[in-house]
Amino acid sequence: MNSLDKLIAHFEKFPGIGGRQARRFAFHLLMLPKTDLQELSELVAGIQDQVIGCTSCRRFFAQNGHGTECAICDDPNRDISKLMVVERDSDIQAIERSGTYTGLYFVLGGTMPLLETKEKKTLRGNGLKMIVNERKEKGLEENILAFYLNPDGENTGRYVESLLKDEVADTPISFTHLGRGLSTGSELEYADPETIKSAFDNRS
Amino acid sequence: MNSLDKLIAHFEKFPGIGGRQARRFAFHLLMLPKTDLQELSELVAGIQDQVIGCTSCRRFFAQNGHGTECAICDDPNRDISKLMVVERDSDIQAIERSGTYTGLYFVLGGTMPLLETKEKKTLRGNGLKMIVNERKEKGLEENILAFYLNPDGENTGRYVESLLKDEVADTPISFTHLGRGLSTGSELEYADPETIKSAFDNRS
Amino acid sequence: MNSLDKLIAHFEKFPGIGGRQARRFAFHLLMLPKTDLQELSELVAGIQDQVIGCTSCRRFFAQNGHGTECAICDDPNRDISKLMVVERDSDIQAIERSGTYTGLYFVLGGTMPLLETKEKKTLRGNGLKMIVNERKEKGLEENILAFYLNPDGENTGRYVESLLKDEVADTPISFTHLGRGLSTGSELEYADPETIKSAFDNRS
Amino acid sequence: MNSLDKLIAHFEKFPGIGGRQARRFAFHLLMLPKTDLQELSELVAGIQDQVIGCTSCRRFFAQNGHGTECAICDDPNRDISKLMVVERDSDIQAIERSGTYTGLYFVLGGTMPLLETKEKKTLRGNGLKMIVNERKEKGLEENILAFYLNPDGENTGRYVESLLKDEVADTPISFTHLGRGLSTGSELEYADPETIKSAFDNRS
Repeated sequence: MNSLDKLIAHFEKFPGIGGRQARRFAFHLLMLPKTDLQELSELVAGIQDQVIGCTSCRRFFAQNGHGTECAICDDPNRDISKLMVVERDSDIQAIERSGTYTGLYFVLGGTMPLLETKEKKTLRGNGLKMIVNERKEKGLEENILAFYLNPDGENTGRYVESLLKDEVADTPISFTHLGRGLSTGSELEYADPETIKSAFDNRS
Repeated sequence: MNSLDKLIAHFEKFPGIGGRQARRFAFHLLMLPKTDLQELSELVAGIQDQVIGCTSCRRFFAQNGHGTECAICDDPNRDISKLMVVERDSDIQAIERSGTYTGLYFVLGGTMPLLETKEKKTLRGNGLKMIVNERKEKGLEENILAFYLNPDGENTGRYVESLLKDEVADTPISFTHLGRGLSTGSELEYADPETIKSAFDNRS
Repeated sequence: MNSLDKLIAHFEKFPGIGGRQARRFAFHLLMLPKTDLQELSELVAGIQDQVIGCTSCRRFFAQNGHGTECAICDDPNRDISKLMVVERDSDIQAIERSGTYTGLYFVLGGTMPLLETKEKKTLRGNGLKMIVNERKEKGLEENILAFYLNPDGENTGRYVESLLKDEVADTPISFTHLGRGLSTGSELEYADPETIKSAFDNRS
Repeated sequence: MNSLDKLIAHFEKFPGIGGRQARRFAFHLLMLPKTDLQELSELVAGIQDQVIGCTSCRRFFAQNGHGTECAICDDPNRDISKLMVVERDSDIQAIERSGTYTGLYFVLGGTMPLLETKEKKTLRGNGLKMIVNERKEKGLEENILAFYLNPDGENTGRYVESLLKDEVADTPISFTHLGRGLSTGSELEYADPETIKSAFDNRS
């Protein structure tokens, strides 16, 4: 396989990219100024050194020489009594954009699908246990399980509750779930019965 | 214009139907057995006599000789203390499918768009006033405003509250809105800040 | 089933219409002025008397009291030496819009799918035979088989050629097919090999 | 801007890639094995040295130490009497896939849009002139202008003909265009009049 085909093969492994678009990416690079190409090459080579996983919440952040915790975990003003467990880094961005939450996070790194019996390697169950153990001395009161509203997300919630059962026994630490209801822009006509039920129960 | 073109012109006024599909409908009729065609013609001619608006909630229902109220309004087991105001007939179907609500309904017949200053003719503001007036003697406690979660829907909620201000003054009748939150299947990553805020506030 | 449900059931049989849209159509009728409803009902009842199949080409046309042939077949200026066989009425409209063809038509009424062994009832094979027999005395020279460029269309072309084999034996009548090539707006990159081959062979 | 943001900014310039997908690409790289990351970085840095433009047809090809012409231009069995002028490298792939053409190519590198008065820098008009001049001594007979069937493509065809007017004067070299017609899978009902006209004229 020549260099062009190898490059295209790499791009074909990018998420959501098929053969035709991978080829376009390669042609795009062939047209770039040499300096851009050089910069991109160096960024690719160094990204795993410069962007590291936060030792607390596990999300990726750009290393800045100040430590191994991300800006949120390192912020003394965040509310240590709340820990929101999410599936992916991008969930944290969405929550932060809403400006509504001041607690801390933990990125589980995946879901526990309904028919799965053992944890995927990427799932950070042990890491979560450690963090909860550590935080229960420091005032942790609430684990907010913020998974997707589908069967796998719900199963992941149950899995996390059972995973932490011993850690929270004999503590006042509670588990909560994000509220269900009608989301912005949604029409009653297309809402499923479960969503309508929640919207009705949560009316105010 | 010949008969075929006239028929197509009628079909072009059907909701969501363009010229090409209108023409297909006409060809469909040309292929139907005569008896089907005759039945359809009679149903069309008689539909407005056989399907009437419920004198209480205003939704359409098939007349059955027993009165002028639909099966829900006529049901003595429905909870008269709750009145849910919706935009369209189809909203009632969605709520009923969820099996969660046992109160009564009122179909407003449209929205009050944000920049509108006067009520559309189809909006049944006066009808709603009358119903609330009548029901307040009979135990009405809660008006649930179940409009869409978009600016027009929210404006319609405000409009209904102001419309009924005098009716509910000096009564214990309250206004409530369906709860917001994440709906089934939705992913945090794509949720808007307002929805996330509601989901967080309604966590349980 | 009440009248409303019966009407909805009729609309659900309209081509491309599902339950939700069928219901919208019924609600549309409930809102129409009585006079419109009456007109639509009469058009539906009478359409099969007023729009009839042309006795020559078989396409539907609005009867005008002048005869049983459509305006094209009845036009003495059309070129009787050419007969274009198409699948559907709407194909004739497309050809006529192009203003390029002055011959006559025959609507076969369907295709002969690849794996089918016997003719569907709607296929007018016998009618086509009769027309070709009649026209061969009157100067018919070319049967243009204008079916879709897919396996079923190509099979229909072979079927028609074999169907008319005896009729055209010992006559100068030929069979032709519409030319393949790049169609307006198409890009080489997305064209299939067969189309590119035809476009190359037909270059000019 | 930190490394992660810089990397995302590079990916956002990839064709067809928005912010969200650029971010996913970066996360994809963060998860890759170090060896893959290193290989990708090296391929990116070296691609412009290893993939070069063919000095004859101008398309990109992976250098293999054997010369500056691509495998097609370097193949003595290709028919030098035909030169097909295309817009993009990917057009050549499509033509080659069809297995129908044995002549040579030239990649113009873009189109001459209808309202443009001067040539874009990327357009290789001068290169084309040189090639045609050189080939006319060697038996060139036909320039096949294989641009898209839209106004810009047609204008590009006219532009190339006028560009080469002096080169082909007093020679037997002709200009041809790919044939128009119905492409595989297309239905008459949706074909534009121009396509139908060509399909009719090219019937066979």
